[in-house]
Amino acid sequence: MTYTTKSTSPDLNKRHEAVVERLAAAGSLKERNVSQMYLAKKGEITWEMRRVAEREGFEPEFVRDQVASGRAVITSNVAHPEADPIIIGEAFSVKINANIGNSALHFSVDEELEKLRWAVKWGADTVMDLSTGPNIIETRDAILRNSTVPVGTVPIYEALARVDGDVAKLNIDLMLKVIEDQASQGVDYMTIHAGVLKHTIPMTCKRKTGIVSRGGAILTKWMIMKKEENFLYTHFRDICQIMKRYDVAFSLGDGLRPGCLADANDAAQFAELDTLGELAKIAWEYDVQTMIEGPGHVPMNLIAENMERQRRVCHGAPFYTLGPIVTDIAPGYDHITSAIGGAMIAMMGCSMLCYVTQKEHLGLPDKDDVKQGVITAKIAAHAADIAKGLPGARKRDDELSAARAAFDWEKQYELSLDPETARAFRDHGLPEGEDKKSEYCSMCGPNFCSMRLSKQAREMAAAQQSEESQALPK
Amino acid sequence: MTYTTKSTSPDLNKRHEAVVERLAAAGSLKERNVSQMYLAKKGEITWEMRRVAEREGFEPEFVRDQVASGRAVITSNVAHPEADPIIIGEAFSVKINANIGNSALHFSVDEELEKLRWAVKWGADTVMDLSTGPNIIETRDAILRNSTVPVGTVPIYEALARVDGDVAKLNIDLMLKVIEDQASQGVDYMTIHAGVLKHTIPMTCKRKTGIVSRGGAILTKWMIMKKEENFLYTHFRDICQIMKRYDVAFSLGDGLRPGCLADANDAAQFAELDTLGELAKIAWEYDVQTMIEGPGHVPMNLIAENMERQRRVCHGAPFYTLGPIVTDIAPGYDHITSAIGGAMIAMMGCSMLCYVTQKEHLGLPDKDDVKQGVITAKIAAHAADIAKGLPGARKRDDELSAARAAFDWEKQYELSLDPETARAFRDHGLPEGEDKKSEYCSMCGPNFCSMRLSKQAREMAAAQQSEESQALPK
Repeated sequence: MTYTTKSTSPDLNKRHEAVVERLAAAGSLKERNVSQMYLAKKGEITWEMRRVAEREGFEPEFVRDQVASGRAVITSNVAHPEADPIIIGEAFSVKINANIGNSALHFSVDEELEKLRWAVKWGADTVMDLSTGPNIIETRDAILRNSTVPVGTVPIYEALARVDGDVAKLNIDLMLKVIEDQASQGVDYMTIHAGVLKHTIPMTCKRKTGIVSRGGAILTKWMIMKKEENFLYTHFRDICQIMKRYDVAFSLGDGLRPGCLADANDAAQFAELDTLGELAKIAWEYDVQTMIEGPGHVPMNLIAENMERQRRVCHGAPFYTLGPIVTDIAPGYDHITSAIGGAMIAMMGCSMLCYVTQKEHLGLPDKDDVKQGVITAKIAAHAADIAKGLPGARKRDDELSAARAAFDWEKQYELSLDPETARAFRDHGLPEGEDKKSEYCSMCGPNFCSMRLSKQAREMAAAQQSEESQALPK
Repeated sequence: MTYTTKSTSPDLNKRHEAVVERLAAAGSLKERNVSQMYLAKKGEITWEMRRVAEREGFEPEFVRDQVASGRAVITSNVAHPEADPIIIGEAFSVKINANIGNSALHFSVDEELEKLRWAVKWGADTVMDLSTGPNIIETRDAILRNSTVPVGTVPIYEALARVDGDVAKLNIDLMLKVIEDQASQGVDYMTIHAGVLKHTIPMTCKRKTGIVSRGGAILTKWMIMKKEENFLYTHFRDICQIMKRYDVAFSLGDGLRPGCLADANDAAQFAELDTLGELAKIAWEYDVQTMIEGPGHVPMNLIAENMERQRRVCHGAPFYTLGPIVTDIAPGYDHITSAIGGAMIAMMGCSMLCYVTQKEHLGLPDKDDVKQGVITAKIAAHAADIAKGLPGARKRDDELSAARAAFDWEKQYELSLDPETARAFRDHGLPEGEDKKSEYCSMCGPNFCSMRLSKQAREMAAAQQSEESQALPK
């Protein structure tokens, strides 16, 4: 990618210096609070705030204010110095996340690192390591130490792996241990399914696809077995105590997101969303940065209600959605079904889109699926940035279109999300030996190229106008 | 495709009989009017109206009323007995069109027939033959005689080919000849760029990408050369006289559609749309069925204005759009950029979406591009049918989701838009020798399958409830 809206890479040593200084002043590990929100509330403009302000073209003070009010999150664990921080919030450019990580059926650290590299190359703003297979810790460590983008996780996966998949053995002490271990390793944000509660279980029984979130399903099974309330909810403040020590952000998980159109916007989903809103307020008491996860499978006509309701009950915390996927009938194409819903909800204010790959519902994505998924999510996010009227968002589009009209193919490729594919598609269609710079492509051939005809027409019009001055417009 | 919302194929001999009878009663070729709109206005419910009513689940009288008022078009040239008619209108399911046809760089009748077969197999409701290369007439004849779906064309392409690409030699007599030749061959609808006018030319001069419609560019060049008004506009009534003899529908072309986001919703585009609205009224005087073509490249926030304005100035004539494409930066992925805009405008009321393939802007689509393009457009159209609340539109989604929850993989595949790809994706991820019916996929592996966990949780909850009667909901 030769084109990027980001400035050149920052000197991350500077970030490291700022963090070292901050930690030295912050006191004991147990008591310290190093979150950006804590600092923002105190009125401090941090290195990280300046950095994201520079990336996005805003004033640092505006960034500080957004973070202080909870309307934006800067993902920047102090133990992840390799990462260039980003800001996630409605006022800023829409971000995309790529899920990587192994499963019990496929596990190779090298393969995950290759997926990481690939995801970042094609435009992922964050990656989530969703490993559930062997070597969870080693895989995550390799990802963290090699990732220049913030990394998210779902700690309950590791917790369950530590008890060999025996849900009954899960408990809060184990979870707190896993969360702190991952926090100290450098994880920038964590999905915590604290909104799946005992009273919401019966609400899911009549659903067509029940509970489709892995975390949600695990916790539901635990609650049924134990006849107790979700320990992530009852011990939420204990979790906050850990998060603030490292500046890990919450991504409050939507364990009850709809898994099909028929279940969208139902009582279970919205009951959980209400709880997530309450939890966001508690997290903010501890100055823990927080975003809210959202659906899922939602028909287009019900998307707006998701955004409006989230904005209302979650007090402006950034929304981070998986899709929405707008039809259930396209397994193998859910990068597209989710791009449609994702573009729409991002235009309405959603701050981050989790990519969905074409393998969704069918298998673990491979490297090519990651690429397709990232580019498709990027299309949705970028289209939303333009629709939101973000300053400068359309600049790249305008430059590419100008290059298109000027038959500057090389510049077109360079400005494309995927220059390699664009070039290959055009070259493939041209006859052997044809000049690759020719003013047409195989779609229309030379005589039917509208761009070429239009250029000729403009030239003729200009010549006539200088002859007859305004004869044409009658 | 084993699943279809359409009923089983009709006996097209019955249509043929109805047409023969109709033609016998209609008088001389020159004077006759056999359009569905003419018959609808007379109060007649034709075989074609009954057929589309059956396909869509409406009363025939409602169909007749929609056709009589111009709010819907039944594409059904009396000289194309091979085709099963469809209805295009806001009240009905959203249709998709696939463009096929050769160019000067690629021409093979067999290849085009293969694309036709492929487009129909994957769900195209109509095809347009946009051939601009050699053997235009033979290629079109092969397509018409083999197509079970209505076929559209852009006659000015053949006109230009007949004068060896010399724009200056175009004239109305040639065009009328081409239109009548194509009409008698069986073309069901034709794009006529009668809205590109002399006074609109200066409006395009400051555009970033000028005129991107091939027809629009050809006619603009002609007007500049001749210093005369567009002959398709000045002789529009002569064209109507031909259309009604065969029941060819107008697809009034948007020769000035925007070719980039920067040009969207500009004066040129909307001036042409106003003209198309006037022309629709003239077409209806002759009972010629009419739809209106629309953009193009449009940012998401400007899509609604397109639909609202079209509805207002075109008096309810069906809208038929190419996209809209919502960002310019994704050459190689414009099937996706157009699916986002297409789904949105279809939800708002657009009646037909022209597919855009991944080769758009870069080259002529091949067979695989046609498949990807059709399926992607189908996703957009189907998502819109659901969002519009069309009766029964979500049935297939519900059935697929029920199969998903029940781990009925075979039924999932069968209900998918692309069963082959869905099956291949899942099978690829499973270990060698693994039972393909197992209750998980490689995405999560057996222990982390939320569907499986959710099923276990439901079973446990049911068992507990029968023990303790409602102990869970506290």
